[in-house]
Amino acid sequence: MLGEFELIERYFSNCGALRPDVVLGVGDDGAVMRVPEGWELVAAVDTLVSGVHFPPDSPPESIGHRALAVNLSDIAAMGAVPAWATLALTLPDVDASWLAGFAAGFGELAQTHGVALVGGDTTRGALSVTVQVLGVVPAGQAIRRAGGKAGHRLFVSGHPGEAAAGLVIAQRSGAASASQTQAQLRSRFEYPTPRVELGLALRPWASACIDVSDGLLADIGKLAAASATGASIDVAQLPLSADLIGELGGSEAMVRALGGGDDYELCFCIAPEKLAAFAAAGICERFSCQVIGALEAQPGVRATRNGTQIRVEGSGFDHFRR
Amino acid sequence: MLGEFELIERYFSNCGALRPDVVLGVGDDGAVMRVPEGWELVAAVDTLVSGVHFPPDSPPESIGHRALAVNLSDIAAMGAVPAWATLALTLPDVDASWLAGFAAGFGELAQTHGVALVGGDTTRGALSVTVQVLGVVPAGQAIRRAGGKAGHRLFVSGHPGEAAAGLVIAQRSGAASASQTQAQLRSRFEYPTPRVELGLALRPWASACIDVSDGLLADIGKLAAASATGASIDVAQLPLSADLIGELGGSEAMVRALGGGDDYELCFCIAPEKLAAFAAAGICERFSCQVIGALEAQPGVRATRNGTQIRVEGSGFDHFRR
Repeated sequence: MLGEFELIERYFSNCGALRPDVVLGVGDDGAVMRVPEGWELVAAVDTLVSGVHFPPDSPPESIGHRALAVNLSDIAAMGAVPAWATLALTLPDVDASWLAGFAAGFGELAQTHGVALVGGDTTRGALSVTVQVLGVVPAGQAIRRAGGKAGHRLFVSGHPGEAAAGLVIAQRSGAASASQTQAQLRSRFEYPTPRVELGLALRPWASACIDVSDGLLADIGKLAAASATGASIDVAQLPLSADLIGELGGSEAMVRALGGGDDYELCFCIAPEKLAAFAAAGICERFSCQVIGALEAQPGVRATRNGTQIRVEGSGFDHFRR
Repeated sequence: MLGEFELIERYFSNCGALRPDVVLGVGDDGAVMRVPEGWELVAAVDTLVSGVHFPPDSPPESIGHRALAVNLSDIAAMGAVPAWATLALTLPDVDASWLAGFAAGFGELAQTHGVALVGGDTTRGALSVTVQVLGVVPAGQAIRRAGGKAGHRLFVSGHPGEAAAGLVIAQRSGAASASQTQAQLRSRFEYPTPRVELGLALRPWASACIDVSDGLLADIGKLAAASATGASIDVAQLPLSADLIGELGGSEAMVRALGGGDDYELCFCIAPEKLAAFAAAGICERFSCQVIGALEAQPGVRATRNGTQIRVEGSGFDHFRR
């Protein structure tokens, strides 16, 4: 008779993509993979804890999707190609329909990005998911946070703030009572799209890149600090979506866009001498990117409107603070 | 002012070995490493949950050590060289002295094995630690569970059962009241030694290998099933230590040796035609290995004494069963 462990493993035995570079997948003490010659290995790891990173009643499909997406977002920010993932899943009990939903959410996103699930561990405890994604990048071409210089322009993809608005909606209302706009915002939180293709497209262009997970201002602060610069952004340039403004009003929309977190967009820098060619390449149009400011010599991050510095509340996300 | 996150990261900024093949370590969206040409990548991941895998009042040094050791043990079972680790640490609160102890236990073992800590994530929640270790192995030379054949002899390293006895001691008594023998057994649970050097030495010899984490009989069953064989072991050959017998008596010592778990020894197979040369290589003497049985065509795992099959209670460890 199969133990519950083996039953759980069944849910994940056909999860994710099949890849010819997986020499040995799930089921041994370790997985064995081939890294192509001339490429480097990139590793990212993130944990999602129930009640901290997602509402406890989140759909299991969303939890599976997000646990992989947040790591794919890190791989994207490095300009790397995601290849393999491991999954450490801690569960309070074994619920077949929950597991099926989780595996479906994880597996569908893994398939989309050609990621093979090569290993895992299932343990009993409070619900928490740790995923590690391994990717590859041509040697020396990973995009770092530290490559920015004063004068480089700052860009962001997509519509930061929508995910934070979606989380508020998810926390206060059931799916049935939500409008279509609310459902769309909620899905921006529950099913974020990691910007893997954008990260690859940026490799020849970006001097620095970070994924926006803890809030735009906070993450710009990290990129600037790693690059030994400061930064200034013009809030009039923020790509606030009509959905976000319609739901929250303009002022609150801006606060969420600057500090909300969970966006999983990419924020990156382009050197001035590359701006014209970068614009001609059409990447901003293809991936909805917008210039929002620039790195500056003066440390710290400043937000301005019409040239006047403004103060913004709620500038980031720190689990041990809130 | 630093957030608690940044304070936590300080404990891990000098944790583990420095390696020239780490292109980019902790502090970016992902880490970047070089895998040598002609080698393959090996990945293992394991989670330790407080109250499931270790007593909640375990010394933090032990928790840090074990979280890395259980993964190094998997890498050892593949015959691979450990190289890099990531650490996902979930904490109920921030306790500086606990963190210092955890980092010391993790870091000392990482240094011993030349492992660099290249990434991590710290989150708030019930205490749980997920470590992933990445290693490298010459292409095609990883030792799998599946390589055994009927007639191959089964070996085990060290003294299975000591760790299980040590856990009982840790759970029932404070350090002060324990005898020296008890303290030694307890340290076999709290500070297991991953058999990395043995795994490397076995690469030219072993047809199959598994690390003994869930109990000797259960893990032999997994190796045999992966190899599409059964197995028989002679309990008279079990390397029961004098400490273990002295503490538990002979009968209970055998039960713990067969089913106790947490040993992190290696169990491996040698083909008959290699036995003489393997013996001459002196590996068993150097690493305290003992022949305990053989793979057989008949599925399942049998324990015998003086040629008579015996029944053993408590043949494994399954978190969702006990």
